[in-house]
Amino acid sequence: MHIGLIGLGKMGFNMRERLRGQGIDVVGFDRNPGLTDVADLQELVAALPAPRIVWVMVPAGEITHGVVKDLSEALSAGDMVIDGGNSKFTDDQIHATLLAQKGIRFLDCGVSGGVWGLENGYGLMAGGSQEDVELAMPIFDALRPDGDRAESFVHVGDVGAGHYAKMVHNGIEYGLMQSYAEGYELLEAKDIVKDVHGTFAAWQKGTVVRSWLLDLLVKALQEDPGLSKIAGFVEDSGEGRWTVEEAIANSVPAPAITAALFARFTSRQEDSPSMKMVSALRNQFGGHAVKPAQPKVE
Amino acid sequence: MHIGLIGLGKMGFNMRERLRGQGIDVVGFDRNPGLTDVADLQELVAALPAPRIVWVMVPAGEITHGVVKDLSEALSAGDMVIDGGNSKFTDDQIHATLLAQKGIRFLDCGVSGGVWGLENGYGLMAGGSQEDVELAMPIFDALRPDGDRAESFVHVGDVGAGHYAKMVHNGIEYGLMQSYAEGYELLEAKDIVKDVHGTFAAWQKGTVVRSWLLDLLVKALQEDPGLSKIAGFVEDSGEGRWTVEEAIANSVPAPAITAALFARFTSRQEDSPSMKMVSALRNQFGGHAVKPAQPKVE
Amino acid sequence: MHIGLIGLGKMGFNMRERLRGQGIDVVGFDRNPGLTDVADLQELVAALPAPRIVWVMVPAGEITHGVVKDLSEALSAGDMVIDGGNSKFTDDQIHATLLAQKGIRFLDCGVSGGVWGLENGYGLMAGGSQEDVELAMPIFDALRPDGDRAESFVHVGDVGAGHYAKMVHNGIEYGLMQSYAEGYELLEAKDIVKDVHGTFAAWQKGTVVRSWLLDLLVKALQEDPGLSKIAGFVEDSGEGRWTVEEAIANSVPAPAITAALFARFTSRQEDSPSMKMVSALRNQFGGHAVKPAQPKVE
Amino acid sequence: MHIGLIGLGKMGFNMRERLRGQGIDVVGFDRNPGLTDVADLQELVAALPAPRIVWVMVPAGEITHGVVKDLSEALSAGDMVIDGGNSKFTDDQIHATLLAQKGIRFLDCGVSGGVWGLENGYGLMAGGSQEDVELAMPIFDALRPDGDRAESFVHVGDVGAGHYAKMVHNGIEYGLMQSYAEGYELLEAKDIVKDVHGTFAAWQKGTVVRSWLLDLLVKALQEDPGLSKIAGFVEDSGEGRWTVEEAIANSVPAPAITAALFARFTSRQEDSPSMKMVSALRNQFGGHAVKPAQPKVE
Repeated sequence: MHIGLIGLGKMGFNMRERLRGQGIDVVGFDRNPGLTDVADLQELVAALPAPRIVWVMVPAGEITHGVVKDLSEALSAGDMVIDGGNSKFTDDQIHATLLAQKGIRFLDCGVSGGVWGLENGYGLMAGGSQEDVELAMPIFDALRPDGDRAESFVHVGDVGAGHYAKMVHNGIEYGLMQSYAEGYELLEAKDIVKDVHGTFAAWQKGTVVRSWLLDLLVKALQEDPGLSKIAGFVEDSGEGRWTVEEAIANSVPAPAITAALFARFTSRQEDSPSMKMVSALRNQFGGHAVKPAQPKVE
Repeated sequence: MHIGLIGLGKMGFNMRERLRGQGIDVVGFDRNPGLTDVADLQELVAALPAPRIVWVMVPAGEITHGVVKDLSEALSAGDMVIDGGNSKFTDDQIHATLLAQKGIRFLDCGVSGGVWGLENGYGLMAGGSQEDVELAMPIFDALRPDGDRAESFVHVGDVGAGHYAKMVHNGIEYGLMQSYAEGYELLEAKDIVKDVHGTFAAWQKGTVVRSWLLDLLVKALQEDPGLSKIAGFVEDSGEGRWTVEEAIANSVPAPAITAALFARFTSRQEDSPSMKMVSALRNQFGGHAVKPAQPKVE
Repeated sequence: MHIGLIGLGKMGFNMRERLRGQGIDVVGFDRNPGLTDVADLQELVAALPAPRIVWVMVPAGEITHGVVKDLSEALSAGDMVIDGGNSKFTDDQIHATLLAQKGIRFLDCGVSGGVWGLENGYGLMAGGSQEDVELAMPIFDALRPDGDRAESFVHVGDVGAGHYAKMVHNGIEYGLMQSYAEGYELLEAKDIVKDVHGTFAAWQKGTVVRSWLLDLLVKALQEDPGLSKIAGFVEDSGEGRWTVEEAIANSVPAPAITAALFARFTSRQEDSPSMKMVSALRNQFGGHAVKPAQPKVE
Repeated sequence: MHIGLIGLGKMGFNMRERLRGQGIDVVGFDRNPGLTDVADLQELVAALPAPRIVWVMVPAGEITHGVVKDLSEALSAGDMVIDGGNSKFTDDQIHATLLAQKGIRFLDCGVSGGVWGLENGYGLMAGGSQEDVELAMPIFDALRPDGDRAESFVHVGDVGAGHYAKMVHNGIEYGLMQSYAEGYELLEAKDIVKDVHGTFAAWQKGTVVRSWLLDLLVKALQEDPGLSKIAGFVEDSGEGRWTVEEAIANSVPAPAITAALFARFTSRQEDSPSMKMVSALRNQFGGHAVKPAQPKVE
């Protein structure tokens, strides 16, 4: 099999490596001249045998939209685009419709595994038609870990369903990380607990909470005991927000995942407007002392 | 009526004023020589006609416990102690039992109203026997606002019930303040909203969210537009914690009140251990950049 | 002043009454022939002096959109439409743009006060230009309670800002109600508390938690002691969801308001899929007994 | 090595099996005559070589307290008691002090692994002195999985620290299960998702959320597709409550774990008093319809 891969960043670069290692020919395209195999999209398309398959692995939103639009012009009927990025599931139907006008096939595929996927293989969640999924199966089989396909690949449902499942996956991930992190803070806070790192390490085998994230947590504490080098400042990249938006849209209570999302928001605030107000109110009714705002350091 | 009042702090001082203004004779005792009417407890007891009534208005916990113990020795059978402080309801039965050994009566009374109680009168929640409540009624009537007694005084139930009701009152207060505060932050965050202060002011009459706390919020914004002088750092004094503990003990879901309590905890953290861990985990699996910890300024 | 009012439901009907009582001439239009003053929109427009002002008070979404569209065709340059319904703030700019193409003015106005507004007056939050707000001021003054205008009316900001403020108002309302409700459940759960109704009643004067909602809570307990006639099933009408969506969009932590929204979602579930899963997991790892699903009663 | 084991329930029975399989002689005692090896405690003590080691594996609280008291009378100086049950960490110091009066050693040990521990081995968290931990190490090595000791055993800290770590472990477990469960409900709610079971199955390898709990979740869905046989009713056995109590006591925000705890409380309510109140309030201010309470079926 011989496919195109657009986007050779942290994820795409590793995926090109893994695909090639599994015997798939890959022509990669990236705006970074040090990474790309071809000069432009036209060259990429020309290099591929028809019907062409192009895997898109670029940032969600405007950039993915632009690439899909370019591909809708560069590709031909019977070719296929697979969006493996973290697109919002609502974008998928738009892209599928745009490409279908030219007879181009479309699959969306959620990809999990982070920087470890090169070595371990990636967990894959696809959305689209059964026929299109089967055409792309050799790629999925190359990307996923060895062993039973059902343990690392799923055809979730219609167009968008792959990214929907990946979104929920990431929402769960928020909740899992927050849960471990709250436990970490509780252990750190207790005087009778002398070996926090050792406690997490000892949970790796035999306990109910063992997981890959726990293994990474142990590794993180080993590399930076007490996490002294890292600030409690956490970005979010969209899927957590979308998960809570979908919880709202579908009337699904999601308090743990939402708690994880809000904790990230709070972690990025230098000072909290809402807590300023609570402090002001306590002062108003009870005469409770307030802490004065710090002068901004320039 | 002629009663003793122990504790002339922010609350007790005002209560002495209000009681006297309503025709109750009050002998106040405080360790602060500038505030006290008598030199010591013995002098206070000697000044009161039997059967004596002593209202205790000192910090909850050890200090209240000490005062009640001293009173159990200084008072006589038929006298009465009323704990008007913010004691935990579980302390009340202990105090009632201690006093009962000497035939001394006990009432617990939750008092709300803050620094405004002097002028407005206080909301009162009493726990104890019907007979004891009736004996103390002239005091309750003097402390509470004018008008219908049922709108500002309640005999909640057995010993401890007054403080239990006050604890729940304060738990609700946490939730109310947090709700207004979240709304404040949402209004402040939105570019099309030009007049945040005016918006809260306009909610004072006619809207569903009008309340005394809202009036104070408007006052706070008037005194310090944008709350620029105040840090988002909020203490808590116990009742919020006890409310959530009781929620747990009684299997009552209390997510809004608990959210308010946790927001206060977070507001007091310079850096969050749990969010350091979430950041470390994101870095481990996804190679996401972390924000380095700030060096401590000495 | 002589205006049109479209929508004579629970809110609109009362507003027509109040406006007329305050000396504003009102031509009302409703699809319900028993309520309407005119047969159709054309008749309404014909009845009004130019420049015309038409207040729209119909359900948000499709229905409001249809009415605005009809008005964009029926009205003339210089006329004004005021949307007083619970429209999402993002609809306002769409409507303003549509009407502006014909030179028709637009204001959005959040209205609070519920069924009590007829008697008490309504709290009002307007969005739009200063000039348009001033033109409509006699209407606002007639609808709002007597007294200082700043305590019941605000020009919040640009088009959409009025509905944005009303949305936040309702989000706060969710949090306030949830807080009182959690306190109610805590009081009901405690054996030493004998008089739950009396406790809430006694909070009406003097306490920190006194509010209009508290007065209604006391009234509700009076009409239905123990709330025995009412199920714990709570609808939501949109503003709460939008508030949380805006919290997400603006990275504002809103845990208390969100807790209130999720509690409503949960209240409407006959059985919770997520709790089925938690039960299944406990059974898997610990052999803990599960409660079997009830057969559906037909 | 030759030890005693008191309590042969779901956990203790399996542990006796595993210990024997690993070459440890075990005399088991249980009130159930079909399970016990000896008739009473005296017989158990008589059967053991001195210094004796007795592992206690009975329900936390009164029952554990009674067993420890009996052992304080039956054992001799130099013997050791290990509490492997789910005792609250605050009980451990009480038990250690009681036993120390007779010169009896005490260790607390949190044990995780559920019904799978017999086969997989158990994760172990011990609290007590270094000397006592070393004496008991052959037992720990027999109970834990093969491989590196640090991945399944930890000496957490002083007396109580083992159970504290187990408590936090279970608190985390609450959060993890709730997170997966919320994701499950979101996938079930979405029409474009056709294969929920397959999606979870495909997360088992390669994804960030892979874990032992996920494997059990897949197994649960395989055994009962759609979880149709199970009600959304979830018990809790104490550790989750204690975790949140400790969060409060140590001012640690724990919103995700607390959300999981409250979701369990809610799952067990036939009707929610707090949501009855919210519904009553909506009816009061807005005239919104309420759902009438269902008559109780006898």
